[in-house]
Amino acid sequence: MAAAQGSFKFNILARDQAGKARVGEFITPHGPVPTPAFMPVGTRGSVKAMGPDDLGRVGASIVLANTYHLLARPGPDLIAKLGGLHAFMAWPGAVLTDSGGFQIFSLKDLRRLDEEGVTFRSPVDGSEIFLSPEKAVAVQEALAPDIMMCLDECTPYPADREQTARSAVLTLRWAKRCLEAQNPEASPALFGIVQGGMYPDLRRRSAEEIGALPFPGIAVGGLALGEPLSVRLEMIEAATEVLSPDRPLYLMGLGAPEDLVESMARGGDLFDCVLPTRNARNGQFFTRSGRLVIKNAAYREDHRPVDEACGCYTCRTFSRAYLRHLYLSGELLAYRLNTIHNLYYYLSLMAEARTAVLENRFSEFVSRFYAERDDGQASADMRPE
Amino acid sequence: MAAAQGSFKFNILARDQAGKARVGEFITPHGPVPTPAFMPVGTRGSVKAMGPDDLGRVGASIVLANTYHLLARPGPDLIAKLGGLHAFMAWPGAVLTDSGGFQIFSLKDLRRLDEEGVTFRSPVDGSEIFLSPEKAVAVQEALAPDIMMCLDECTPYPADREQTARSAVLTLRWAKRCLEAQNPEASPALFGIVQGGMYPDLRRRSAEEIGALPFPGIAVGGLALGEPLSVRLEMIEAATEVLSPDRPLYLMGLGAPEDLVESMARGGDLFDCVLPTRNARNGQFFTRSGRLVIKNAAYREDHRPVDEACGCYTCRTFSRAYLRHLYLSGELLAYRLNTIHNLYYYLSLMAEARTAVLENRFSEFVSRFYAERDDGQASADMRPE
Repeated sequence: MAAAQGSFKFNILARDQAGKARVGEFITPHGPVPTPAFMPVGTRGSVKAMGPDDLGRVGASIVLANTYHLLARPGPDLIAKLGGLHAFMAWPGAVLTDSGGFQIFSLKDLRRLDEEGVTFRSPVDGSEIFLSPEKAVAVQEALAPDIMMCLDECTPYPADREQTARSAVLTLRWAKRCLEAQNPEASPALFGIVQGGMYPDLRRRSAEEIGALPFPGIAVGGLALGEPLSVRLEMIEAATEVLSPDRPLYLMGLGAPEDLVESMARGGDLFDCVLPTRNARNGQFFTRSGRLVIKNAAYREDHRPVDEACGCYTCRTFSRAYLRHLYLSGELLAYRLNTIHNLYYYLSLMAEARTAVLENRFSEFVSRFYAERDDGQASADMRPE
Repeated sequence: MAAAQGSFKFNILARDQAGKARVGEFITPHGPVPTPAFMPVGTRGSVKAMGPDDLGRVGASIVLANTYHLLARPGPDLIAKLGGLHAFMAWPGAVLTDSGGFQIFSLKDLRRLDEEGVTFRSPVDGSEIFLSPEKAVAVQEALAPDIMMCLDECTPYPADREQTARSAVLTLRWAKRCLEAQNPEASPALFGIVQGGMYPDLRRRSAEEIGALPFPGIAVGGLALGEPLSVRLEMIEAATEVLSPDRPLYLMGLGAPEDLVESMARGGDLFDCVLPTRNARNGQFFTRSGRLVIKNAAYREDHRPVDEACGCYTCRTFSRAYLRHLYLSGELLAYRLNTIHNLYYYLSLMAEARTAVLENRFSEFVSRFYAERDDGQASADMRPE
């Protein structure tokens, strides 16, 4: 029941009897990560507006950092010199780095793509940067996270079958090169990435091929690009049909709260998404009953917290009226307070899901999740920040 | 040795034998304020980028809020409805509100000034707002701080003698109207403001006239407008020559660290300034040895904290290299971390000064303050934010 590589280990502690939901833990050089886990996104080595103190208080055990942005500035050499990402960010918990592939393919900075790798423009100074599977591994080893990701070609949405199939086999060849490039002395665990677009059979094939490689964890990429939730879930199901359940399953870029709940029911162990942090900065709060847009005039004199049942610092301390005032005034404090709430909501949702699995009542947890909502809001925009 | 009004009281606890420096405390409905005290500036009901939790951790006991900005948005009625500024901001310590005069006269939104009052443009929607001494008092009573200020005409710098004299007598007539307008049932203590520009005899006369009125505290306004430190100190001395030493002396808009040190030596008890907060947001740190500009290339790989002797969260946790990266990347966290350091520095300087007075070694404190500095930097721009 354990998948391991170097100092990384995944233990499954309990499975829900009625479905694929499970509770486990990653053992990492920076402590245990209870799963299912949600990773706040720390694009440039900082979860926007949040100090490590705030991250600890909202219950984060692992954060994601973006190789694409850190490669451009301040550069992996500087971070390595300062002791790696954990020391650089002063974050004592676990860190996962993505490979940069998603940003390169989605942010339209792509200049050239061939078998060897990709060339893209630096988002900082416009200079050309080359990334190959080997270089993506070397850069991430310099950043020294607990988990790193293979360089993949993230298939756009929509994409035709031929393009999708070609992209998935390139991703497979690159996955093998990443494995070979890995320095056995370096500590990050390397996860493989399944592609296959919105074609169930291509997803299955990619999952079989990537799953056959000795990765200690498997990710499903190329989702949350604008496709309907039902399609997204179908793709996750196609992949999990053929993946061994012994390894952690990372669903990249997911998602809205309903994505997390539905994906956990399908065996998802790890998630990341910019929604809680970015929407916080745009004045949108996630609550049990749905989304609350703080600028609405209805909250002008509202002395209540954003969510009366929430235990976060923001809800325990401030009124909707004050949060509305801060947001409308463009006060910097709004970004922090709003982010604290949204991450607390996300991380509490994960903790409740874990407890539900341990108590073998995950389907009741899902029913209650939907019953508490005022609305039928589906997942929204989840592009990276 | 006590000046009192309603629930406000000022106790002088110790005087330095060699000069005018003294240690005291304000007793307020929101706890004691050890003096000399520095007030972080919370313009719109928030010290920029700082939560009340952060303010507590840097050692703030009193903050300033700007009537001018709060009058325009969200308005005193809303704040009163939500229980006053303390409840609105969730700040358990003391609050002082300025009267709005300084902003009205300095921000060039002034439309009309006559004996009755001033009309200015709302910084939010451009609409006309009228403020008289009576209205300034009523607005501040609605905001419900611990200390409120008279509406004064802040004399510009430079200003000729005739304009300055005319302005000082208008400020005097307005001070009397503020006293009469005060609601004896409302709790804020009302402080008077001395004007007189850069003319020592006009300063003395204004101090005599304002000092003759029954204010529980006296402020010196119209300073830190760009005049040299030596002129500023001469004006403070002119005022204190004739002011009773039993009342607290508030030096408005001061200042740079050297302003605080020199003004404490001349009997200053209370200060406010945007320098620590605004310069933090511009990447400038105050340290014992001088100012540190974090974007400098010299700090690119610097693993040391901003100030190795500093006990603030930022210095105990992050390297100069990381703070430089956050600042250059425009990361929101930079604002908070930089502000935490600068306010900690300011508030620690005040705490050290208080200890020095209690131990009767204030002049040694002043000598050491200058000895530790690398440079001879004088006070810079201190306009409001």
